[in-house]
Amino acid sequence: MNLNWTDRIIRQLAEVRARRPLVHNITNYVVMNSTANTLLALGASPVMAHAEDEVEELAAAAGALVLNIGTLSERWIAAMFKAAAAARRGKVPIVLDPVGAGATQLRTATARRLLAEARPAIVRGNPSEILALAGDGVQARGVDAQHTVEQARAAATDLACQFGVTVAVTGPEDTVTDGRRVARVRNGHPLMARITGSGCAATAVTGAFSAIEADPFAAAVGALVVFGIAGELAARDNPRPGSYQVQLLDALDEISAEHIWELTLLETCGE
Amino acid sequence: MNLNWTDRIIRQLAEVRARRPLVHNITNYVVMNSTANTLLALGASPVMAHAEDEVEELAAAAGALVLNIGTLSERWIAAMFKAAAAARRGKVPIVLDPVGAGATQLRTATARRLLAEARPAIVRGNPSEILALAGDGVQARGVDAQHTVEQARAAATDLACQFGVTVAVTGPEDTVTDGRRVARVRNGHPLMARITGSGCAATAVTGAFSAIEADPFAAAVGALVVFGIAGELAARDNPRPGSYQVQLLDALDEISAEHIWELTLLETCGE
Amino acid sequence: MNLNWTDRIIRQLAEVRARRPLVHNITNYVVMNSTANTLLALGASPVMAHAEDEVEELAAAAGALVLNIGTLSERWIAAMFKAAAAARRGKVPIVLDPVGAGATQLRTATARRLLAEARPAIVRGNPSEILALAGDGVQARGVDAQHTVEQARAAATDLACQFGVTVAVTGPEDTVTDGRRVARVRNGHPLMARITGSGCAATAVTGAFSAIEADPFAAAVGALVVFGIAGELAARDNPRPGSYQVQLLDALDEISAEHIWELTLLETCGE
Repeated sequence: MNLNWTDRIIRQLAEVRARRPLVHNITNYVVMNSTANTLLALGASPVMAHAEDEVEELAAAAGALVLNIGTLSERWIAAMFKAAAAARRGKVPIVLDPVGAGATQLRTATARRLLAEARPAIVRGNPSEILALAGDGVQARGVDAQHTVEQARAAATDLACQFGVTVAVTGPEDTVTDGRRVARVRNGHPLMARITGSGCAATAVTGAFSAIEADPFAAAVGALVVFGIAGELAARDNPRPGSYQVQLLDALDEISAEHIWELTLLETCGE
Repeated sequence: MNLNWTDRIIRQLAEVRARRPLVHNITNYVVMNSTANTLLALGASPVMAHAEDEVEELAAAAGALVLNIGTLSERWIAAMFKAAAAARRGKVPIVLDPVGAGATQLRTATARRLLAEARPAIVRGNPSEILALAGDGVQARGVDAQHTVEQARAAATDLACQFGVTVAVTGPEDTVTDGRRVARVRNGHPLMARITGSGCAATAVTGAFSAIEADPFAAAVGALVVFGIAGELAARDNPRPGSYQVQLLDALDEISAEHIWELTLLETCGE
Repeated sequence: MNLNWTDRIIRQLAEVRARRPLVHNITNYVVMNSTANTLLALGASPVMAHAEDEVEELAAAAGALVLNIGTLSERWIAAMFKAAAAARRGKVPIVLDPVGAGATQLRTATARRLLAEARPAIVRGNPSEILALAGDGVQARGVDAQHTVEQARAAATDLACQFGVTVAVTGPEDTVTDGRRVARVRNGHPLMARITGSGCAATAVTGAFSAIEADPFAAAVGALVVFGIAGELAARDNPRPGSYQVQLLDALDEISAEHIWELTLLETCGE
């Protein structure tokens, strides 16, 4: 493990808590509450808004814009593009969560359009979603991953190079790449897959980190390490899924420099 | 209690956990998160999606389709009918939750149209909703039950016969009928009425069971027994409503063959 | 502290629990679940509905109508005005939560129109929102407060006088005024600002109290005292945000006459 990385992640978390970046989320109905609570527990300031009439103002004023296609419809897609344009004009980093790409044509097509036209700094998805984005003709079943992170590694690199985007693929082991550098994050816990919205929460945390870290690759790595360690802390008493969800929020509030120092499981190459 | 039933329900739960059926929910905003977590805690795989452009693909690929009219609007009604048509073509069972039928004309009319035209395999509602569906001129106040299960028993039988549907009426004691067979489930706990979405969760669990059980009557009975026992397990430490909601998810993860064997309170007739 | 007030608040809470008023909420997606659970834990009966086709029926049948602009869009605004008109015809009190007024033009303009045309009995907001409503050209960042209650006190009085409305400004110390009377409520806990929807929950509780208390000023004072004490009870074991959210619901169920008697921190003048 790279000691410089550990120090950097500790500083990132301290900055999120000190600056409380405003994270504008256009996200799905299922996770709006849990995502807002995730960002508040971490120390950021969430705002959820999707009306075409106001997303430009909010995105321009935010520290980061998170676009999540988990419960998609026409009007929301239009609002996402409007918000993205305002974010780009204001140099606000965009993080894309292509929820369910590969499961329906609407999601696959929308995720690809957002990747190409909204120009996100970071895409965070599960392996099936990243494969679908890369156009591998993946047909996923629902929104849970049906592929391994290993299977999606090449697709992640392709997307990173083609679109100049940092790609974070999460699963039992996460991988992050900007096409040049690659990181593997082995933090996290299997219970994360037993609660809804943990992927979306990881994306929102990535948004918060991208608001205070100019390098998208470093923002994604820091966010996934912190979220993964919180996921481990939350599992300390062997909770079941209901309690785990509560304790994950508690852990995001609790996580300290010492936890990051002791628990980070990170390998990087290409630096 | 019928020992064969207990064995059957134990097998049903084992199958849900082994096969992790995809349950497509077009459901209300209030319970999307808690319903997804309910299905994940049980061992199923939830997907929430309502866009007219994608519901057909998802419903056709799912193990069950749950239609819940809890927060209704025009576009969602159209999506429900599209999804239902796709589900029928794919022989995917449909479970209907007529939330608030009787409380407004929109809900009563929509619930009746869905019952007649979407052809659900199972309807799960509270007594007021079932009475409203049966056209008894019920005027309900809001979405909480104002009638007893006893009062709705005849309406349940009428609906079952008229529409060839299994009707599950839940309350302090649940009743399930397909017009020929009748089951009474006395599992459950009063705290279930103190948290939002417990009825919707029961419907979603019924959806998961219908995905692995060909007989809708048996699916509804199994689902209500399992959900009711989970409701009892969750109440073991005399929690208040906030904790109870958390522990109900934990209990859905914990419930075992032994719990079903020891705690099932079921009477059936007509078999 | 005024002993008559303590007795009155104890009676208010007992009435909410005895009469279980139906509270119709047209509220934002983020807090629908937590608001419904808040009202259920308190002892009221929530209904969430936003379709233009049904809001009039529900608002007319309700004990109170809560309008919350947290995730706004065109259709919802239209539904809010329809519901408000029906509520006024039925003498159903309206409580307005101007979430994010000051953060976008859409929210500021909509909140002002609702205040002027929907004629709420009570407005409950954070200091930034109340300043924005009063037209002080406030530019807020997101939906969290950036001003102190002290800064918003004059604006609250102005709004109360101009619109004949009771204004409740919440923060570390709450203030309530109807233009003539002023109350300060010093109950509450800093953790409330670390969970999403606690302001919206305070508004919903205010709605429940306004359903059983004819004097809007007294309803707002009683609601904020009860919600604030619940917020203190929830913090007893030094929870972190995830646990705190759960325990806040538990505390709303637990809060007793003794708690109100012992813990109320209220000063009033102008009576």
